[in-house]
Amino acid sequence: MQGKHMSNPTAAMLVIGDEILSGRTRDANMHHLAGVLTERGIDLQEVRVVADDPDAIVAAVQALSGAYTHVFTSGGIGPTHDDITADNVARAFETPISVRDDARALLEAHYEKSGQELNEARLRMARIPDGAALIDNPVSTAPGFTIENVHVLAGVPAIFQVMLQSLLPKLTGGAPVMSRSVEIFRPEGDIAGPLGELANAYPELSMGSYPFIRDGRFGANIVMRGSDEGRLSEAMSKLEVAFQS
Amino acid sequence: MQGKHMSNPTAAMLVIGDEILSGRTRDANMHHLAGVLTERGIDLQEVRVVADDPDAIVAAVQALSGAYTHVFTSGGIGPTHDDITADNVARAFETPISVRDDARALLEAHYEKSGQELNEARLRMARIPDGAALIDNPVSTAPGFTIENVHVLAGVPAIFQVMLQSLLPKLTGGAPVMSRSVEIFRPEGDIAGPLGELANAYPELSMGSYPFIRDGRFGANIVMRGSDEGRLSEAMSKLEVAFQS
Repeated sequence: MQGKHMSNPTAAMLVIGDEILSGRTRDANMHHLAGVLTERGIDLQEVRVVADDPDAIVAAVQALSGAYTHVFTSGGIGPTHDDITADNVARAFETPISVRDDARALLEAHYEKSGQELNEARLRMARIPDGAALIDNPVSTAPGFTIENVHVLAGVPAIFQVMLQSLLPKLTGGAPVMSRSVEIFRPEGDIAGPLGELANAYPELSMGSYPFIRDGRFGANIVMRGSDEGRLSEAMSKLEVAFQS
Repeated sequence: MQGKHMSNPTAAMLVIGDEILSGRTRDANMHHLAGVLTERGIDLQEVRVVADDPDAIVAAVQALSGAYTHVFTSGGIGPTHDDITADNVARAFETPISVRDDARALLEAHYEKSGQELNEARLRMARIPDGAALIDNPVSTAPGFTIENVHVLAGVPAIFQVMLQSLLPKLTGGAPVMSRSVEIFRPEGDIAGPLGELANAYPELSMGSYPFIRDGRFGANIVMRGSDEGRLSEAMSKLEVAFQS
């Protein structure tokens, strides 16, 4: 199904965090990012989830950064000892990292206003790789950053989302991909034949079948995606005619 | 945090499906698998999500199968043209794949009983790589399979879950990893110092801090994991004393 919108920018996501892999926390950022990028015409092609492990982070950043236009990371940029994302993204690019004046100034102003101490732990959140551009964080100030084609965002969903909003205007989108979907309350095995013929007849559209079970009945959501609205409507009409009951 | 329970079997998951990457569907199987494996003492160390793309599937299966004790895949084993998982898992192991008699017999019995036709599309679900062991599917019959260390399961959550149940007794678990957690309603920057000292003093435990924002207040769940219950309780008590208010 991939590769149909080849002129669009591509993206990958890297989720960093033991809490997802232990089943303690259910990741919410992947689903959010996927929806936002799809709207924007950026083609999310891969997601990886790795543990709070330095070498795993470095390897994933290098692999994804080399393969896709953009990489978005989530998690591991807070003040605690297990927040090791910034250091290892820097390591992936062999770039020095230290407390940077611009990030420190943001934190100083924020903690002064809130009457909290800018202690050593919090100062770790001002560690930014040389040459990286800061990403605004209107929720809790500690910034994300972009280095090369890697965008480093927080893991807390509310902060991930505002950082993505800050970043989005700076990213070039692609041709909008339109989609149509229809729910067919028939077993996928009945839908497969006619759908396969349509997929052959409309090679420029991507067609997917996503089965479900609801109230003990089998059905499937059929989704067609493409950039030619006329062809999309035509193919969808044919499908609907085939399954009128 | 990883690598603390090094004697336990390791695992990776491969989620196959455009619908997750387009934001249309929110994956539910990752969270379920993570919880089940953690209980079982199997250490889930990586998850990848790839599109319905033959080469992406082959590359991911090969990479993960070489690196971990077990690999669990979800999605792409139904009857429609976009169900390409079985063929590409076979390709990853350079193993022939065809409609196998045992799988065909299961489907024949099922569709005869339900009065549905075992058409060409449905017969695709009997395509099983040579030498693979079938995995039971009490919900809709079409089986999953295990080839080498890769377990190929359905994407529909209800079916993924029963297949995993069928499979689980065959997998060797590791030492149970115990965990304790406490919710501290303080900003992570206040928790980080004492927690970092504890992490240094108890190197055999893994300690994670998972921040949240609730009703406009910052807090964090602190999770400690390890196999020595005494040490775990001791460290957790010290943390609680430090943050008694």
